[in-house]
This record gives sequence, C-alpha cells and structure tokens, in this order.
Amino acid sequence: MTPGNHPIFRKVIPMKEGLVQDLQEIVGEDAVRDDPADLYVYGSDSSVHCALPWAIVRPGTVEEVQEILRYANSNGIPVVTRGAGSGMSGQAVPIQGGIILDMKRLNKILEISPENTYVRVQAGVVDDDLNRALKPYGFMYPPAPASSRIATIGGEIANNASGTRSVKYGATRDCVLGMKVVMADGSLVNLGSTTRVEASGYQVDRLMVGSEGTLGVIVEATMKIVPIPKYRCMGVACFNELEEAGDTISEIIASGTQPSVLELMDNVAITAVNTAIDLGLPDVEALLFIEADGNVKEAVDYEIERMKEIAEKYNAFGIDISYDAEKRTKLFKGRKKLFASLSRYKEGYSCTSLADDMAVPYSRMAEMARKIHDIADRNDVIMTAYGHCGSGCVHTKILMDPTRKEQWEGARNAVREIYEYVRSVGGTTSAEHGIGLSKAPAWKKEKQDSLEIIGAIKKALDPNNILNPGKLQDAPDDWLTATDLRYKAE
Amino acid sequence: MTPGNHPIFRKVIPMKEGLVQDLQEIVGEDAVRDDPADLYVYGSDSSVHCALPWAIVRPGTVEEVQEILRYANSNGIPVVTRGAGSGMSGQAVPIQGGIILDMKRLNKILEISPENTYVRVQAGVVDDDLNRALKPYGFMYPPAPASSRIATIGGEIANNASGTRSVKYGATRDCVLGMKVVMADGSLVNLGSTTRVEASGYQVDRLMVGSEGTLGVIVEATMKIVPIPKYRCMGVACFNELEEAGDTISEIIASGTQPSVLELMDNVAITAVNTAIDLGLPDVEALLFIEADGNVKEAVDYEIERMKEIAEKYNAFGIDISYDAEKRTKLFKGRKKLFASLSRYKEGYSCTSLADDMAVPYSRMAEMARKIHDIADRNDVIMTAYGHCGSGCVHTKILMDPTRKEQWEGARNAVREIYEYVRSVGGTTSAEHGIGLSKAPAWKKEKQDSLEIIGAIKKALDPNNILNPGKLQDAPDDWLTATDLRYKAE
Repeated sequence: MTPGNHPIFRKVIPMKEGLVQDLQEIVGEDAVRDDPADLYVYGSDSSVHCALPWAIVRPGTVEEVQEILRYANSNGIPVVTRGAGSGMSGQAVPIQGGIILDMKRLNKILEISPENTYVRVQAGVVDDDLNRALKPYGFMYPPAPASSRIATIGGEIANNASGTRSVKYGATRDCVLGMKVVMADGSLVNLGSTTRVEASGYQVDRLMVGSEGTLGVIVEATMKIVPIPKYRCMGVACFNELEEAGDTISEIIASGTQPSVLELMDNVAITAVNTAIDLGLPDVEALLFIEADGNVKEAVDYEIERMKEIAEKYNAFGIDISYDAEKRTKLFKGRKKLFASLSRYKEGYSCTSLADDMAVPYSRMAEMARKIHDIADRNDVIMTAYGHCGSGCVHTKILMDPTRKEQWEGARNAVREIYEYVRSVGGTTSAEHGIGLSKAPAWKKEKQDSLEIIGAIKKALDPNNILNPGKLQDAPDDWLTATDLRYKAE
Repeated sequence: MTPGNHPIFRKVIPMKEGLVQDLQEIVGEDAVRDDPADLYVYGSDSSVHCALPWAIVRPGTVEEVQEILRYANSNGIPVVTRGAGSGMSGQAVPIQGGIILDMKRLNKILEISPENTYVRVQAGVVDDDLNRALKPYGFMYPPAPASSRIATIGGEIANNASGTRSVKYGATRDCVLGMKVVMADGSLVNLGSTTRVEASGYQVDRLMVGSEGTLGVIVEATMKIVPIPKYRCMGVACFNELEEAGDTISEIIASGTQPSVLELMDNVAITAVNTAIDLGLPDVEALLFIEADGNVKEAVDYEIERMKEIAEKYNAFGIDISYDAEKRTKLFKGRKKLFASLSRYKEGYSCTSLADDMAVPYSRMAEMARKIHDIADRNDVIMTAYGHCGSGCVHTKILMDPTRKEQWEGARNAVREIYEYVRSVGGTTSAEHGIGLSKAPAWKKEKQDSLEIIGAIKKALDPNNILNPGKLQDAPDDWLTATDLRYKAE
C-alpha cells in the first residue's frame, strides 16, 4: 500500500505533496522513513488496530520537534506521537494518516537529583533504563508497568500508566512534578515545577497526563523518585475459588494493610503461562501474589503476616513466602511472563487487547473477576482476569480465533457487556492502558456529561486538530470498524 | 458603601437591577444577604485585599447552585465561590463585584467507604468535621492544612491545599479521585471516578484542583482516605543556626527517611508564640518538629532514630521525643498556634499574608530560610521562615506597621525579591496557599510561557468570564493597588 492511499485517511486529509522532503529538511535524510515496511510497522501498536501513516519522523532535538509541529500545524497534517508503541488501545495508530513522531531518539536522562528526590528525563527514555540509572543512587521510579522493558516515560505519562507497585507508590500521575511540552503550534512550554508540592494555579501538567498525545508533545519530564526499600518480601497464595482471591484483595486494602505488590492471576492465565513456558504453576482457580517492602524487617514481616492471615481466612493454601531476591524473581516469573504467554493458551487462538483493562472499587473485585468469565462464556470467547488488583486495576484479554468473523462479533458484545458492568458499579473504563480507539465507545458513555468540556479543552489547545486526531471523544463509535484490524477475518 | 458603588467593580460590570430579588427567588429570602455589614465581611478573606460583593447567596442544594450559575451566566454577573474564606492570597475577594457563592450549607458527608478507601462529601464539609467522622472507622483524610478547623474540602481542592502530613501522604491533588462540578453555564458534570487508579482520558478533575474557582463550582468530591496509623512518635529539636535546621530537612529527605511531619519554626515564629501564649519555647534560632508514624513500633523508632541522627550531625540539641498523645499535642502546640500568634510579635505590627508561601527544591531549604531574613532586613520589614518544609513548602509572613505607607512599599519590594529568588532556584510561587491576587504578579512571571494555554482553557470552560474573574492570569500586575487594602495606610 502506498502512503496516502489508505481508505480511511484518504477521506479525511489529502496527503501533502513533498511531505517526506520537507521533513528531511528539518531532521535530515536518515530520520525520515516512508518505505512500506516501516509504514506497516508503525501503523500498529499493541492493539488490534492498524492504519498506515504517511511518514515516520524521528527527531533528535526538541527544536526539531518544534519545527515539525510548526510545519504540521501550518499544513493541517496529523501528528501521532509514539513512544514504544506498547499501547494496547490504538493510541499510536494513525487513524487519519499523517506523521508518526517517533520519540525514541530523545532518550537522555538529563538530571538525577536524589537530594531533591526527582529525575529529569527526555520523553523517549525507557522505564527500565531509567531504573537502572537510578539504582546506584539507591532510588527507583516506582510505577513499574508490565511493559517497562520497552515503554518510554513520555508514553507512560501520556497514558497515565501504572503497574505492580502502584498499589503503594501510585500511578504516573502521582509521580509527575513538571514537564516541557511542545504545543500544536510548535511553542515550547514549561509546566509544573520541580517541587514536591505546588499550588500555583491550573495544574496543566496533570492535564497532559492521560491526554494520549492529543494536547501536546511531551518532550521532557520531571518525575518524583523514591528510595529503594531495604527489604522486600514476596509471597504467593493458591485459591480454589476465584471469588475468594477477590475477597482477599478487598479485605487486605480495607484493613489498612500496605502491600507493595498485590496481583491476581486466574486459571486461564495460569494455564497460559504453564503452556507457554512450563513453569509448573499450580493448576488452581487463582493465584495471588503479595509483597511488602520497607526499611525495617519487622514492619515488612507485619504486613506480610496480616496479608497471609486474611488470605487464609478466605481458604488460601500453599502459601510460599520469601525475602530472597532470586526466589522472589522465580515466584513472580509467571506473572511477568503472562502477557506474552496468553496467545499460547489454546491452539489457533490469539490474545487480543480488548477490554484489556478497567478499574473498579475494591469491594467489587471478586464480582468483577467472576463477571469476566460469565461474559466470556456467553459470547463464546475466552477471557482471563488478572492484574494489579491492589490498586483497583483489573486486566483481561479476549482469546479467540481471529480468523472467524463471528468471534469478532462475540468480542464486540463481550467488550460492551464488560464496560456496562464496570459503569454500573462506579468503575472506570481504563485503569492504566488508556482509551485510544478500542475503549473509546465505552469511555464516551462513561464520560458523556464531560465530553463537551473535553472537546472544548482539545479545541482550545489544538485548534487545527493535528494532534492524534480521531481519538478519545473524536474516535469512531464502533471500535470494530474504526480501522483495519491486524488480523484477517473471513 | 452601597453595593454596586465600589470604584473597582463599577468600572467593570454595572450591577444588575433586582439582583437580590432574583436570587431570593432561587434560594429563598433568608439565603441571600446584601446588608453592608455582611458585604463587608464577605469582601475580605485572610489576605490583605478587600472589595465588596453585590450580594451573598447561600445555596442549600446542587440544583440551586446550577440555577444561580445559569442566572449569572445569562446576565454576565461575576460569581466568586467561597468556602471558609481562609485563603491567604485574595482568592475569594470579589475584585469585580458580583455574587459571593457561600458553599457552607452544602456540608453533608454523603458516603464513607472504608472498604473502598474513599469518602464522598459535599464541598462545604469542614476538614476537621470530616476527620472526626472518619475516626470511628479508623481512617483519616490526610492533608491537614493549618486551617483545617474551618477550611472546607471544596476550598482545599480549589487551592490544592496541603499541610503537616503532606510530606508523607501528599497534597490535596494526590487525594482527589473524582468530583461533581457545576460549570459556568449551570450544567452539572461528573469528573474522575471512585477508583484508586484511572487512565480514562483527560484528568479534568485534576485540572479543577488549584483552579481557584475560575473553571467551575465544585459541589461534591470523592477523596482517598487512609488508615490511621497505630503509632505516632513526635519530637522537637533545637538549632542555633537556621541553616543547620534547613540542612537537616534536606538530608532527612535525601536519605530516604520517611517523616509524617517535618516542620520548621524560626526565631521570629518562636518569639511570636512565646509572646502571644507564653508557651516557654526555647529561645533558639530554629525549632524542627519531626514525626514518624506506622503500624509497627520498630519501624517508627527506626525513622525517628534516623531523623535524630541527622539532626545531631547538624548540631541539634535539646531533642525531646514522645509517643504519648498528650505530650505530642503539647510539643506541637507552638506550631499549631503560630499563625494566630504572629500579629503579637511586635507592638503595632500586623501579620500580613504576603509572600506567605512558596515551594523550593529540598536542597535550597537552608538558603531559602536565610534569604527570607536578608530580604526582610533590606526592606525594613520583619519576616519569618516556617512551614511544612518536609514537603518542600516554606511559609513566611510580612510583619509590619500597616499604617505606614513606606512599609507597604517595603513589602512590595520584599515580595518581589522573594519570588525572584524562588524562580531562580526552580521553585514555585505557591506551595499550598494558591495565587489569588497577591501572588499573581510573581506567578505570571513564573508561568509566562503557559499563560496563553491557561487563558485558552479558561475561555473554553467559562466563555463569559463569570467565574471568579480578574484572578490568576487576569489579575492586576501590582497586588498593592489591585484592590482596597484591609488596612488604612497614610
């Protein structure tokens, strides 16, 4: 397929003549790509969606980002900012074509300030790289999303990522102190500050968190860092009833116990991991991973002991606990390898990132886990319940044969039913993976009374609608037909 | 003075005929006031500013708030939302006249959900009342601003308040989960959610935090609550050098020690308290209050011990530490009574809330404390350094003879110099008291490159500019002449 010929975006904005040459003048020849193989790779992220960009540009400086934005804004060219492309909802899929702004060259750690407990980084810095750099200082950047091996800090901010440690240390929004953002017109603005507290008017930096590239291009961020605790103790508990694991989660939180990790895996997840990498996880209805950390062993013991007591009250068995780093890594390996394993659950079935995450109030955790399986059964697909449940986050995926059209219809129904339930209990569409395209229909229902405000903010900050257009409030109402799919269904 | 005759607002918007009767039709006769005594009281907050409103209206329901906003929006009448009026920068002073919307009747605690770790309240609920209601559940709402006895949750959100416990538990922005807001046109919107994590698009609820009544009227909020720790241990340490107390603060934070309170009082503050209430605080250069809390005594001991070691390294002496609740209250009483005492520091001198708070990176704490006194000396006023320094917050006040015009000139210079320094070290204009009128000139310099964005957001959400007009980016460039002063200078 030639750039500019995609049926979706051709309707919207005609591709500008000489685009590639114009971009090359800004960033140099090597930093612009438009060969079909590259366009295809950059046309997808980790979602089910696919739509080809016109060109990919890889700026090496903030000034180049500004220049690209000025050019795109003058010419009405869509700009889709992309970190690692690990988003699961189509955030980085260029539904209206345009330029992919690949931020990975902007990957410098600019300042590590343990004495002020912050780090200042360019947007393309990878989470694990940041944590490796912080380790010698005895500090960590805590959210720890599962994609930390590849995810960039800019992408994490744009999606308000969270992860295994968010139950104790908060989500990305809780770590942002300030940032530099290139706005649609190419202007560079400083938002927030470097201080721990700030009450200096509108928290525009926080507005950028979760805006999924629709309000500006984050080029630099100042993030809170925390000391690495001296002690960590991890455990795993087995349950014969999924609801009992759910009730354990709710009660741990309500009791005021402070886990640093509190993760669920249901039987579908366990089976997938055992099939994929033969870990020999116990074939039970649910596993619950618990961890506590701190600088005083007695305090860590206390938190672990309380979690253990609560789990046992709900009939947990086979509880295995360790302070040893190697043993902890081994215990948690199944959870770490889960996402990659899910496609191995059943021959011919693929793991699709649909209804892939949500958040519910803690007291609904058990009900939610069961609901996922009921809805899957009813719609002839397979779903799994897992996730950072200690922070209210539930993950699922839809496992199905993506070559069969009726499976996609089942997926559509399942997604709708899942989010109807989530809304009915006061939950929210996304806990940490963002909205993009595939969650947009559910999200628009959840946020119906603030869509006008959201649209007004978007228009105020990006009047020509060049920044990741066609997403969030402007996304199509049916995710299934919103773009081509990455799968061929017949 | 008759409503509508004030020289400031008469220039701006002529007062509407029949305003009081129109409002009485909405909320009933008793809930509208326009007698001069009331107008005078509501023309000031805890700042130096004063400007009379046209009327005060006290809605009893959300629907009444909506109706008032619809009316005001149609008629171009300014609406200044007011909680307790404890704001120190003129946030609730109606610089363009209009209606004061007194939120204190909306004071219901709607839901306490320990199992989901949130509380849902109307905006007029007082902080201390909320904490009293949470106590039987074993929970607390943590920020703890000094004004918690009167401050409302709505006002705390609008100003992103923080306080003594923010060093460990965060500021208001870290506790907000969701809210209901009446927009300028009277529409009621739900923002955020009830869940601990949320990545569902623009975090518009967080944008409302710190917006000082200029974007909407917060009528209800869902806030995170945390369990009350079993153990609290407080201590106080004396220093002969202010800088040594500042260095102690920086090192405590950088070392990864976790205080639950870390507060500074300099000699001006100590003297003021001793003069006002004869507490017999030691007449030293600085006092540092430290506290640690937790569910395991060994862990609390550990944190306190580390703080003590660091303080001693910087020559602290007379360190007094206690787990006993009564003793703790006694130790901290001086800090609690500080604000009320400052006006007693010197006969004929008043305590004015000018340059009253700021935040700086931790490593600048010692330098900042000294800078405050240098600037005060140079400008012939008295200033004090104190505050929740563990969260980067520094408070000061300007003590002066407010009847002397040249003292106000000195204050103007001092305020300017303080904030020039704060900006030069990467600090921010306000840590927790907000911007209003008296910090607006400094804030506009700090945020100069995002003022356009801020203005665009304001215009998008309040196109008729009725919500607290003339504040933040629209505030006058000279706070001294922005309004009448609450003091008579000759």
